[in-house]
Amino acid sequence: MASETHHTAPTQFAEVDGVRYAYRRLGPEGGVPLVMLQHFTGNLDNWDPALVDALAAEREVVLVDYPGVASSSGTPADTVAQMAQQMISFTVALGLEQIDLLGFSIGGFVAQDMALVRPRLIRRLILVGTGPKGGPGMHGWRNDIETHARAAVPTGEDLLYIFFAHTETSQAKGVEFLGRFLARTEDRDVPSSLASRDAQYDAVLEWGIPDHGALQRLTGIQCPTLILQGDNDLMIPTRGSYLMAGLIPDAQIRIYPDAAHASLFQYPTEAAKDVNEFLG
Amino acid sequence: MASETHHTAPTQFAEVDGVRYAYRRLGPEGGVPLVMLQHFTGNLDNWDPALVDALAAEREVVLVDYPGVASSSGTPADTVAQMAQQMISFTVALGLEQIDLLGFSIGGFVAQDMALVRPRLIRRLILVGTGPKGGPGMHGWRNDIETHARAAVPTGEDLLYIFFAHTETSQAKGVEFLGRFLARTEDRDVPSSLASRDAQYDAVLEWGIPDHGALQRLTGIQCPTLILQGDNDLMIPTRGSYLMAGLIPDAQIRIYPDAAHASLFQYPTEAAKDVNEFLG
Repeated sequence: MASETHHTAPTQFAEVDGVRYAYRRLGPEGGVPLVMLQHFTGNLDNWDPALVDALAAEREVVLVDYPGVASSSGTPADTVAQMAQQMISFTVALGLEQIDLLGFSIGGFVAQDMALVRPRLIRRLILVGTGPKGGPGMHGWRNDIETHARAAVPTGEDLLYIFFAHTETSQAKGVEFLGRFLARTEDRDVPSSLASRDAQYDAVLEWGIPDHGALQRLTGIQCPTLILQGDNDLMIPTRGSYLMAGLIPDAQIRIYPDAAHASLFQYPTEAAKDVNEFLG
Repeated sequence: MASETHHTAPTQFAEVDGVRYAYRRLGPEGGVPLVMLQHFTGNLDNWDPALVDALAAEREVVLVDYPGVASSSGTPADTVAQMAQQMISFTVALGLEQIDLLGFSIGGFVAQDMALVRPRLIRRLILVGTGPKGGPGMHGWRNDIETHARAAVPTGEDLLYIFFAHTETSQAKGVEFLGRFLARTEDRDVPSSLASRDAQYDAVLEWGIPDHGALQRLTGIQCPTLILQGDNDLMIPTRGSYLMAGLIPDAQIRIYPDAAHASLFQYPTEAAKDVNEFLG
């Protein structure tokens, strides 16, 4: 397994609670594996291979489709709390007793809930391009972002608009990312359904209902946490990352310049280095 | 007046509500003046001359003693809310209709309350080495910091311990600061009384009583806000600055490296540049 890469790691399946979870696993076994939770409607192929391979050079990495999304069977959840229980079930199915957990975007919402309801499972937490339940600016996306994110068949242009800063330099980095994430030719994952898209956006909106009191949940996250974000995320406002850094008791924050939602795909080498150092 | 410096600006007095406020005013008149609110037990001399002169090169700067502190008459307030009303009265006494406001440490608490109860007075707000009412880690200081901060006659060593990071590089910058702030020889301000020290620490503790709900006050700060802080403040935890950046609607944050509570005295040139750009 250690010689697999993001392009070659086969899609595997694990069955639990009547759901057949599609996942891929790569990198050296034996340590605490890093489970990575994907963004809105994303599947196994939507990670940046440059990021995943740089992480898998130092640790085992597990990628997974949420139930009802892409190659995983089952019904897509319409709340973050349900998604968290599904991902906990998945880790149980794989026999994982302790994990490091990276959540990107909606995956960061799910990761926060997992850290709160199953703290013994999670050694260290990485929250990327995400924000806190009930926080200001979290109740759905700007109209332009929503239009691009909910496109029936998202194009490269949609991804560039959502993920990268609207500057020449960031967009150029985005084009490089598009080339990398499309490079796998065999055993690619399937697109997500419109039903999973709609369920996930319900979950995004439910998570974002303004609720100042809910911010106090962050004070219950017990594990060391690394927060990564672009300096101007157009989808999930950057200020949400400052808020998490202010309330999670043991948090570090790194803000990448000239970057929007997908800072980890704009700076895959730096992000992998930051994550590897944090986990090392 | 424009040719005065931090060393030469005479101490003046303004009377209102039975209090004789001691203040100094320097820099070019005619624009929006920058009022600066001092730290715990600090007087007119406790600002860094390098910082004040760099600010006064571009705008009018007003320094002031809180009532009952140093050369100001009156009773020292034992809540931040009272201190805010006192400082509002002071600006009224000077006939100031609109100000920019910089608050350092407890002065940042006062500045937040002023921005909330008298928003029309304040054009722009700068919060340095401070934190939000009720926030985590705000309920008083670490024992070692409290001991140094409450010393009956604070020495240079006390200031170095409280204000600067416990690294060789930061301490060396601290020694430079000590030289600068002691350089004024004529018309120096008088030390603060122990009664004002005790009243101010009551105010610090009252402000810091844990109260998650009180954090929502930050969402009511209407003016653009610049938050400056050291990366490891030992007195008012740095995370409080992230929290303010996450909840104040129009906030920017700048974290200085290798710095503790008095980042603005460690990096006076950079801090003045950041403030002047923000106000310009």
